[in-house]
Amino acid sequence: MTTTTETTETSPADVDRLVTAAAQATPAWGRLAPADRAAALGAVADALDAAAEELVPLAAGETHLPTARLTGELVRTTFQLRLFAEVLTEGSYLDARIDHADPDWGMGPRPDLRRVNQPLGPVVVFAASNFPFAFSVAGGDTASALAAGCPVILKAHPGHPRLSARTGEVVTVALQAAGAPAGTFAVIFGQDAGTAALQHPAVKAGSFTGSIRGGRALFDLAAARPEPIPFYGELSSVNPTFVTPAAAAARPEEIVTGFVGSVTMGVGQFCTKPGLLFVPRDAGLADRLAAAALPPAAPMLSDHLHAGYVEALDRLRGHDGVRVLAAGEDPTGSPTSPTVLATTAARFRGDVEELAAERFGPSALVVEYDDAAELPGLAALLEGQLTATVHGEDGDDVTALLEVLVARAGRVLWNGWPTGVSVTYAQQHGGPYPATTAPTTTSVGTAAIARFLRPVAFQDVPARFLPAALAEDNPLGIPRRVDGKLQVR
Amino acid sequence: MTTTTETTETSPADVDRLVTAAAQATPAWGRLAPADRAAALGAVADALDAAAEELVPLAAGETHLPTARLTGELVRTTFQLRLFAEVLTEGSYLDARIDHADPDWGMGPRPDLRRVNQPLGPVVVFAASNFPFAFSVAGGDTASALAAGCPVILKAHPGHPRLSARTGEVVTVALQAAGAPAGTFAVIFGQDAGTAALQHPAVKAGSFTGSIRGGRALFDLAAARPEPIPFYGELSSVNPTFVTPAAAAARPEEIVTGFVGSVTMGVGQFCTKPGLLFVPRDAGLADRLAAAALPPAAPMLSDHLHAGYVEALDRLRGHDGVRVLAAGEDPTGSPTSPTVLATTAARFRGDVEELAAERFGPSALVVEYDDAAELPGLAALLEGQLTATVHGEDGDDVTALLEVLVARAGRVLWNGWPTGVSVTYAQQHGGPYPATTAPTTTSVGTAAIARFLRPVAFQDVPARFLPAALAEDNPLGIPRRVDGKLQVR
Repeated sequence: MTTTTETTETSPADVDRLVTAAAQATPAWGRLAPADRAAALGAVADALDAAAEELVPLAAGETHLPTARLTGELVRTTFQLRLFAEVLTEGSYLDARIDHADPDWGMGPRPDLRRVNQPLGPVVVFAASNFPFAFSVAGGDTASALAAGCPVILKAHPGHPRLSARTGEVVTVALQAAGAPAGTFAVIFGQDAGTAALQHPAVKAGSFTGSIRGGRALFDLAAARPEPIPFYGELSSVNPTFVTPAAAAARPEEIVTGFVGSVTMGVGQFCTKPGLLFVPRDAGLADRLAAAALPPAAPMLSDHLHAGYVEALDRLRGHDGVRVLAAGEDPTGSPTSPTVLATTAARFRGDVEELAAERFGPSALVVEYDDAAELPGLAALLEGQLTATVHGEDGDDVTALLEVLVARAGRVLWNGWPTGVSVTYAQQHGGPYPATTAPTTTSVGTAAIARFLRPVAFQDVPARFLPAALAEDNPLGIPRRVDGKLQVR
Repeated sequence: MTTTTETTETSPADVDRLVTAAAQATPAWGRLAPADRAAALGAVADALDAAAEELVPLAAGETHLPTARLTGELVRTTFQLRLFAEVLTEGSYLDARIDHADPDWGMGPRPDLRRVNQPLGPVVVFAASNFPFAFSVAGGDTASALAAGCPVILKAHPGHPRLSARTGEVVTVALQAAGAPAGTFAVIFGQDAGTAALQHPAVKAGSFTGSIRGGRALFDLAAARPEPIPFYGELSSVNPTFVTPAAAAARPEEIVTGFVGSVTMGVGQFCTKPGLLFVPRDAGLADRLAAAALPPAAPMLSDHLHAGYVEALDRLRGHDGVRVLAAGEDPTGSPTSPTVLATTAARFRGDVEELAAERFGPSALVVEYDDAAELPGLAALLEGQLTATVHGEDGDDVTALLEVLVARAGRVLWNGWPTGVSVTYAQQHGGPYPATTAPTTTSVGTAAIARFLRPVAFQDVPARFLPAALAEDNPLGIPRRVDGKLQVR
């Protein structure tokens, strides 16, 4: 293995070569029967599982994340690949529709129209730092784009270059062995390589998980292309959590323990970390938090993120409306330990932009309110969110609060914590900007495949030229809408 | 009626007032039971039908379009509103999904997750000039946005201001009578008012049908907002049509007649006008076209469009690789008559950007090729298209050509003409840029509603707070995906 070479920045010429190869692979990869593409995804999952003993230590060495967490994340990653294989064989993702010709159609005679989803074309995926498996080389964006029939150019995150190179090799070899055309998958390194790929005319979509600054810059590039392309960026979320007076009275210890656990899990490096906790002022929750045992300081994913955490925390500590409630031990002496701070609803209203900003790392801000009737108004001050949570009791009527949260968040939780995003059919990991740049989509769950599909209608096209999904006798056995009626075999 | 006042440019203060009212209407309009929103759409359709005798003459006076065409277009428009009402009661548009909690889920225990589509929020719709009913005030974008539960701010097209004002009144009165909250619909006038509305923080999406220049400028504004929003622009398409040697030999007269009819229909002012016709050189089609009777010059929708047609046609006539095949009579003496021109495949390859540009109005360019094997390569030179058409015979194998066309167009036709876009379940009116700014979507057909919806997942949320679509016993009787399985009642 030539580790040094592998993680050298990819040259402009190589980016062009790899994107061109991806474009050339598009027809063949997209034309594969869904079952064959499903088998290829399964083969990738098997290969990653088989390489776990090599990959997990590589990841641990580059990310400071514990082995148990990484092992679990790899399980999640291969589970996800196999779930998309299932999506392919089930077939709803094709959204196949057949309207037979109808001379009596209400607005005038209609022709025979058949519509099915097609792959968009090559996709550039920008990997995240905080999930070196699940949102990286073989992560959710890669899995859903490949499932859709789109070749993937994976821009590796600089936080785990050797893992990225090695994972890329495992994926590429497995795909090739499963019959995928050359060019279906490639890993590139370096920021310039990533932006060059995103601007390449043959690329038809981009996806990204990371910071608001980096993600917005890439979104702007994608939108400014001569041919603008969809860009699915997951950028920023503070994941507000609202505790009703009844919940604070009934379950104070459970809420404090759950909150601290969720904030400090993975050293606070989850996009779903609950960064804001709204609590009733006189319920004693702040006192309990002040007395809570926070875990000690732990290394973050990178020095860059560590420096960002220190800077953001310093700034918040220095805010004249904010006080520190509790902090974990810091054996190093630098102010990097998990920290919970507090402010009042009035101060929060006066400086929302600063106080409601996402801070990556194990800190959170508690906002004390006087009256539960304030909650919908406080929630309405917030930007788009990946998640929003309410802790309440049976007698609580939080209808007004939930209405505000549903309008702002992609996932709304009750009596839970937002960290831990299950990969399922009904999951939604997205939300209005700045949570994502594409609020109509999700980056986790089976619906993530829709980001990389484009519908095409066939009008009066002879049977011999129709995709199998649109053949009259439904050889794929997939759900279809025929003359307006949804038919499930 | 105060016509003068109605079509005055809307002031910035009024734009702000109307958008704010739309934002305030969002929860109530979005919360209405789908059946109630369906009834409101039906009421709008009824009111428009009832006003036909007033509206059609208004439209004829402002657009130069014949009464029969306008009457038919109004039928299409009210049919479309009623079709979206049907979409609402059928319920698939909600994409409701329920995953019950599962301790044995493959990647670890999963919570109860339920996901359903919600309205995005207020939408600014920019009306088109060429369909004063079907793509204007009460057109497809309005119908699909209202159906989705989004209030609409309709920016009227300056080509038919009085019709826009009056249609707006009919829609507003009908919606109010049907129980829609105040602010659900408003018409605004003036370019500055339109851009101000699109940039208003409370607006959550934009849609547009019109020129590439205007549409791209608005797309850029939407993408440059502090909170970028989805912008669904339908901009430009030249709708290439390919005639195989066998088809040219078998049906020359049918093809020539159909082509001339489709190019000159509605004075060539359809976004699906077949602007490029690829024909075999030695099959005599060009001669037949040269001898074809083209209709005489007819007034276009506006002086602005007429001037643009003259300029583009002059330019094409002056191109040294292009010759005029046929032109209709022009009683006015100015060169505005329907015109068919021709070039060779070699010249076309050498100047694709110029020769494949959309030209609004009744002109088209015939491209003569030597060998059918050239067709996939010629097609590959083209940008994204709303439609692409093949005329072929039973023995033709156009697999390679179709593969190129499917990768470039939203609708692929066989032995037909692209003008005439039926509103159905399987219709697709979209395509890669510059056909549209959002290739994953359609602006015609029932799937158009998806543009204005955003999924939200509910995690462990008590039944009393769940939307009806997600209630365990399925009170709406809609199709849902439960634990991964699609269930249709």
